[in-house]
Amino acid sequence: MNEGILHKVREMNPLVHNMTNQVVMNFSANGLLALGASPIMANAKEDAAEVARQSDGLLLNIGTVGEEQLDAMILAGKAANEQEIPVVIDPVGVAATSYRTKLFESLLSEVQPTVIKGNAGELAHLIGRKLETKGVDFVGETDPTEVAEEVARNCGTSVLCTGKTDIVTDGNRTLKNETGTALLTQITGAGCLLGSVVTAYLSVGEDVLESAHAAAAYYGKKAEIAASQTDVRGPGTFLSHFIDQLAGEDMG
Amino acid sequence: MNEGILHKVREMNPLVHNMTNQVVMNFSANGLLALGASPIMANAKEDAAEVARQSDGLLLNIGTVGEEQLDAMILAGKAANEQEIPVVIDPVGVAATSYRTKLFESLLSEVQPTVIKGNAGELAHLIGRKLETKGVDFVGETDPTEVAEEVARNCGTSVLCTGKTDIVTDGNRTLKNETGTALLTQITGAGCLLGSVVTAYLSVGEDVLESAHAAAAYYGKKAEIAASQTDVRGPGTFLSHFIDQLAGEDMG
Amino acid sequence: MNEGILHKVREMNPLVHNMTNQVVMNFSANGLLALGASPIMANAKEDAAEVARQSDGLLLNIGTVGEEQLDAMILAGKAANEQEIPVVIDPVGVAATSYRTKLFESLLSEVQPTVIKGNAGELAHLIGRKLETKGVDFVGETDPTEVAEEVARNCGTSVLCTGKTDIVTDGNRTLKNETGTALLTQITGAGCLLGSVVTAYLSVGEDVLESAHAAAAYYGKKAEIAASQTDVRGPGTFLSHFIDQLAGEDMG
Repeated sequence: MNEGILHKVREMNPLVHNMTNQVVMNFSANGLLALGASPIMANAKEDAAEVARQSDGLLLNIGTVGEEQLDAMILAGKAANEQEIPVVIDPVGVAATSYRTKLFESLLSEVQPTVIKGNAGELAHLIGRKLETKGVDFVGETDPTEVAEEVARNCGTSVLCTGKTDIVTDGNRTLKNETGTALLTQITGAGCLLGSVVTAYLSVGEDVLESAHAAAAYYGKKAEIAASQTDVRGPGTFLSHFIDQLAGEDMG
Repeated sequence: MNEGILHKVREMNPLVHNMTNQVVMNFSANGLLALGASPIMANAKEDAAEVARQSDGLLLNIGTVGEEQLDAMILAGKAANEQEIPVVIDPVGVAATSYRTKLFESLLSEVQPTVIKGNAGELAHLIGRKLETKGVDFVGETDPTEVAEEVARNCGTSVLCTGKTDIVTDGNRTLKNETGTALLTQITGAGCLLGSVVTAYLSVGEDVLESAHAAAAYYGKKAEIAASQTDVRGPGTFLSHFIDQLAGEDMG
Repeated sequence: MNEGILHKVREMNPLVHNMTNQVVMNFSANGLLALGASPIMANAKEDAAEVARQSDGLLLNIGTVGEEQLDAMILAGKAANEQEIPVVIDPVGVAATSYRTKLFESLLSEVQPTVIKGNAGELAHLIGRKLETKGVDFVGETDPTEVAEEVARNCGTSVLCTGKTDIVTDGNRTLKNETGTALLTQITGAGCLLGSVVTAYLSVGEDVLESAHAAAAYYGKKAEIAASQTDVRGPGTFLSHFIDQLAGEDMG
């Protein structure tokens, strides 16, 4: 595991601008603080770009986005692109409605992400495919790795496809991560916070794929450790211990 | 206790569309995940109806509602009504201001709820009465059961009136529930999450009164068990353990 | 420590109107409930003033404020001023962007705060100075106590400047508080919730400086006790135990 990037996060304390959904704002802020980064939330059209320009990384998560926040995201994203600040886009629920699909397309036509982070279903939707899932298993013929690679090539970006196995790819080179626990699927915002953590890693790391992979590996490993604590008896106690673990000094 | 409905929730994993207040979004999502349902939050006017149509149940909670979200709620509620998807309306704070009273009236004139869930004070306000309370005790002559039954008859709906004793009624038939713990009154969103849980139960149950009653009974029982854990020393640790309990397999 | 004010909070159960940022709404509500106060959140322009007039205290926190919420805050703040209800203003992130600086100036030109609560960097910005910080230490020549006193005199208000040492001042008389723990800096909203707690204390206390000081002292002491619990192993478990402690009966 690449612990060098985590150490850099803690040393440099990067400012991560989170434009994220209303459900997870508190959890994402606490997770980033635990990690050693500095979260800032600013969704107003009037100052999103100014905040983005001061930040070390920008997360755009469309989970509860509407027209107004979309405009602000585009302004912030363009500002980040101009200054070569890493941008992570998380297309939460992009496949749920035609409106969200359209909003996401507007966003992607204006802002160049460093990484698109989504689950296999969301990513498949971006290239016009449909992934049939049953529980946690994919049924049907589509392979998540192929989906991730195709999205990466189509969008000229790197992709983190989350799942039991996380896939990190730029369309040519592909890394995988197996850390994690089922409890992450039983709390809200686990994927959203991972997007923020990836943004923090990208803001200090040198190689995009390595950084995204290290973020996912650390996140999953810390979740595993939290899940194994004797005080953890379900998703509620897991939440508290997972934040503790993210703040921990070592991988013990 | 009717455990059959809980098993159905876990088997069918119903999609519950939560249009709820900003204070409790995270807690409600985590509570529904723990229960075994799938929460979705979508408040934009542009896609609230599309999300509602895909969902198995719709919760409308007016705790922090403004004009925009009200319009979205009406669109979603009408879509749910058309497709006979159960709708729970929670008139949080309806008596607090004349504005909220008016918003709630608009909502109720356009959307037919399956269940109205509120406390005795909120429900009394809906029929033009005022319930005098002192601490947890009602003083004065108004009986919560009568209030709940009158609201049910007036609105042609079922009613869940929460309190030390929960009252479930359609105006003719009335069920009561005694499970619960005072700690539920010391955390924010306990009533709001119950609204979401009732929506999940209605989405899989057959009988409205039985389903609402089973939801309240399960919720209160799980809260009792959480409150009795040795690790629980106040409302903060109670919160975590309550989520754990909601996720538990049995009524142990 | 002045426990008399806490007892009054628990006896009178003051209604505290929180117009605060989206990140901390849930945490602030739970913290106020634990303390023994009654939180209410109402951000709509249409009823913010009506809610403020019924409340015992009003908190205005600009952490995620936009034009709309600002208008509502001004209406609520004016209503509170007219009725001599205490108003706490928390200029979260006021120095972050020129937009926030401008919004804050509009707010302050219309609403007279009882207390401005901020950290030294935010307060310094209000009087056109810049506090250089490195980690938790101030570098450079500006002294936080001087900053707090100057803000108090300039704005004709009392000031609570948070930090390792909290400073409470009206520009003439100055009190200090040393309670607290570093874990408070590792969770989001610790400063925001303190603003709500100060509002609750002001709503029942007689002397502004004494009340603000007692609130900060209690808050920090309870955080210290929470941090020392054997079950607390990081910021996640600290959060739960801190809420427990705020709800506790004694200072034990």
